[in-house]
Amino acid sequence: MTEKTDNERFERGHALLNKIHGTTGKNVLEGISEISPDLSKFITEYAFGDIYSREVLGLRERQIATIASLITLGDAASELKVHMKAGLNVGLTKEEIIEIILQMSLYAGFPRAIHAIKTAKEVFDELKE
Amino acid sequence: MTEKTDNERFERGHALLNKIHGTTGKNVLEGISEISPDLSKFITEYAFGDIYSREVLGLRERQIATIASLITLGDAASELKVHMKAGLNVGLTKEEIIEIILQMSLYAGFPRAIHAIKTAKEVFDELKE
Amino acid sequence: MTEKTDNERFERGHALLNKIHGTTGKNVLEGISEISPDLSKFITEYAFGDIYSREVLGLRERQIATIASLITLGDAASELKVHMKAGLNVGLTKEEIIEIILQMSLYAGFPRAIHAIKTAKEVFDELKE
Amino acid sequence: MTEKTDNERFERGHALLNKIHGTTGKNVLEGISEISPDLSKFITEYAFGDIYSREVLGLRERQIATIASLITLGDAASELKVHMKAGLNVGLTKEEIIEIILQMSLYAGFPRAIHAIKTAKEVFDELKE
Amino acid sequence: MTEKTDNERFERGHALLNKIHGTTGKNVLEGISEISPDLSKFITEYAFGDIYSREVLGLRERQIATIASLITLGDAASELKVHMKAGLNVGLTKEEIIEIILQMSLYAGFPRAIHAIKTAKEVFDELKE
Amino acid sequence: MTEKTDNERFERGHALLNKIHGTTGKNVLEGISEISPDLSKFITEYAFGDIYSREVLGLRERQIATIASLITLGDAASELKVHMKAGLNVGLTKEEIIEIILQMSLYAGFPRAIHAIKTAKEVFDELKE
Repeated sequence: MTEKTDNERFERGHALLNKIHGTTGKNVLEGISEISPDLSKFITEYAFGDIYSREVLGLRERQIATIASLITLGDAASELKVHMKAGLNVGLTKEEIIEIILQMSLYAGFPRAIHAIKTAKEVFDELKE
Repeated sequence: MTEKTDNERFERGHALLNKIHGTTGKNVLEGISEISPDLSKFITEYAFGDIYSREVLGLRERQIATIASLITLGDAASELKVHMKAGLNVGLTKEEIIEIILQMSLYAGFPRAIHAIKTAKEVFDELKE
Repeated sequence: MTEKTDNERFERGHALLNKIHGTTGKNVLEGISEISPDLSKFITEYAFGDIYSREVLGLRERQIATIASLITLGDAASELKVHMKAGLNVGLTKEEIIEIILQMSLYAGFPRAIHAIKTAKEVFDELKE
Repeated sequence: MTEKTDNERFERGHALLNKIHGTTGKNVLEGISEISPDLSKFITEYAFGDIYSREVLGLRERQIATIASLITLGDAASELKVHMKAGLNVGLTKEEIIEIILQMSLYAGFPRAIHAIKTAKEVFDELKE
Repeated sequence: MTEKTDNERFERGHALLNKIHGTTGKNVLEGISEISPDLSKFITEYAFGDIYSREVLGLRERQIATIASLITLGDAASELKVHMKAGLNVGLTKEEIIEIILQMSLYAGFPRAIHAIKTAKEVFDELKE
Repeated sequence: MTEKTDNERFERGHALLNKIHGTTGKNVLEGISEISPDLSKFITEYAFGDIYSREVLGLRERQIATIASLITLGDAASELKVHMKAGLNVGLTKEEIIEIILQMSLYAGFPRAIHAIKTAKEVFDELKE
C-alpha cells in the first residue's frame, strides 16, 4: 500500500460508502455524527477507506460475508437492514439474500434465521413502496 | 421441491459433503457418529442434503458466508478450520480467505479476527506439509 | 429410524407444532412463509418432524432446555415469548418459568435474566386478558 | 469479610443502588418485583450488597467496566441506558462515555458501537429535557 | 424467605454443591480459590446457597437448563463437562444428555452442537476408565 | 484532529503499543504479520494510532474497559492474557484485575468469570517465574 493521508482515506471511503449504501448510508452516518463525529469519521476511513476499498473481493461477495456476519451476531437488526439494501445495490438478488439466511440457520440457529427473515421482509416491503 | 425420502436426502447430502469437504468432512462425521450417529445423520441430511444442495448460491459463495459466520461466532475454531479447507476446495484463494477475516474485524471485532488469522495459519501450514 | 419421506416428516412436524404451540406457532410460520416458504418448511420438518418428535425427552423437559437456551442467546425475545407460551401449554407453571430465569442469571448474567423477566411479564399479562 | 445476614446485605445493596442509580434503579427493580420479587432481591443483595460495595475499585471505574461489558453483550440496550446514566451520576463525563464506545469498536465491532452511540444519544437527550 | 446469615448460605450451598458435583466441584472451587477465594465463596453462596437450593425445580430439571445454556454460550467447554457429569449424578442418562445437544442444534446452531458432542464424548470416556 | 498520514498513524500507534504491551505486543503482531501483514498494520494504525492514542481516557481506564469487554466476549483467552499483562504495565494491580472479573460475573455470568480467573492465574504465575 502506498502511503496516504487521512483525508485521502476519508475521501476514498466516502465515495465508496455512497456507491454501496446510497442515501441510507448517508443518513446512518449523519445520525452517528450528531453525537460522535469521530465514530462516523473512523467508520468512513477504516471500514470503507481501508477495508471495503481493497480489491481482493468484489462488493457483491463482501455483502455476502457482511450479511452472514450480522445474522450471526443476532442483535444487529438495523445494520442488517442497511446491508441487505446494500446487497441489492451491488448485485445480490432477493432470492440470494434469503438463501444466505437459510444457510445461517445451520451456523447461527433458527431464532437468528427467523429474525433475519423478518428484517428481509421489512427491507423488501420498503422497496415496494 | 419434489418429495424425497430421507435416504435420498442422505445420499444427496453425503455426495455433496464429500465434494466440499473431502476426507476432512468424513473424519469429522465419523468422530460425531461414535457418540451420536443421529447428529451425524441430521447434519448430512439437513445441512448438506437440504441446504447446501440448493442452487441459488454457488459453493464458493456459500463458503464465504460460512467462514464469515464462524469467525463471528468466535468459539468455533475447529469448524472454521474445516470450512477454510473447504473454501480452498471450492475455489477460494488464500488471499480471499484472509480478506474475509480482515472484513470481519469490522463486524466481529479484532480479537475474533486475530483468532481467525491464527486458524488460517494452521490451515495453510498443514497444506504445505 | 425407519425411512420416511419429506411429506411424512412435514405431517408429523406440523401436528406436533400445533400441539406444542397452538395458534401462536401457526401465526409465526405463516409470517415466515410470506417471504420464505422454504424456511417455514425446514422448521416444520427438521425442528419438529425430526427433533421434537423424538421420544428421549418429554415436551416439558424440552421446553426447559429451549427457554434456557433462548434466555442465554439474549437477542431472541420474540422466540422466548413463543416458547414460554409453549412451556405453559405442555405443563410448565409460571413459577417454574421464573425459576429457569433465576437460574440463568448464573450462566447468562443479570441483563439477560432481566430481559427474560420482562418477556415473562408480557406473556403472563397477555394470558390474563 | 465478616459474617453478615441477608438483611444487612440487602440494606447495604439498597443504599448503594440508590446512590449509583437514583430513581432509575428504583423503577427498574420495581418493574422486576411485579413478576419476580426474588430476582429483585438477588440483584440488590448479590450485585450491589456483595459486589459493588467492595472497595477495590471506585464506582467510576466500575461503571467503565460495566458500560464496556454491556456494549459487548450487544443485546442489552435498556441496561446500557441505565448504566450510562449511572456513569454520569458517579463522575463520568459524556465525552468519556463516548470514548468507551469508540474503544469498544475494536473489541465488539462497529455494529455494537453504533448501537451504543444511539443509546448514548437517547440518554443525553433525556437529560436535556 | 426467612433471613439467613452468609454462613448459613455458604453451608447450605456447600452441601448442595457436594451432592450435585461431588469431588469435581470441590476441585473446580479449589482451583478458583487459589487466586480468588471470594469468587469461590460467591459461587457457593449465591449459585448454590441461593439459587440451586430453591425447591421450584428439581435438580435433574435444573441440569437440563444449565446444560442447554452452556451449549448455547459456546465457549464454556470445561463448565459443560462439569455439568454433564453433574447431570449424570442427579439422574440424567447419557441418551438424555445427547438429546439436549441435538435439540440445541436448533437454537445455537450446529457448530456448538458438534462441540458439545465432543465434550460429551470426553465425559463418557472418562467414566469408562 | 489534524490531518495525518498513514505513516504518522503507524508510528504513533507503534510507539504506544510498545508502551502498553512491551514485548508481548511485538510478539503477537509478528505472529499475525507472518500471515497477514495488513491486519497487523491495521491494528497498529486504527486500534493504537487512532483510538488508544486519544486523550479522553487514561491508559489504566482503557485497560479496565478492554478487560471487561474481553471477559464478556468469552472466547478471547489469549487476548485477555495480553491485556491483563498490559493492565499491570499501565498501573492496575492484581487485586483490581480480579475485582473486574468479580464484577463481570454479574453481566457475563459465572462461566466467563471462572474462565477469566483461570487466565489471571496463568498471567500471575508467568510473572512469578
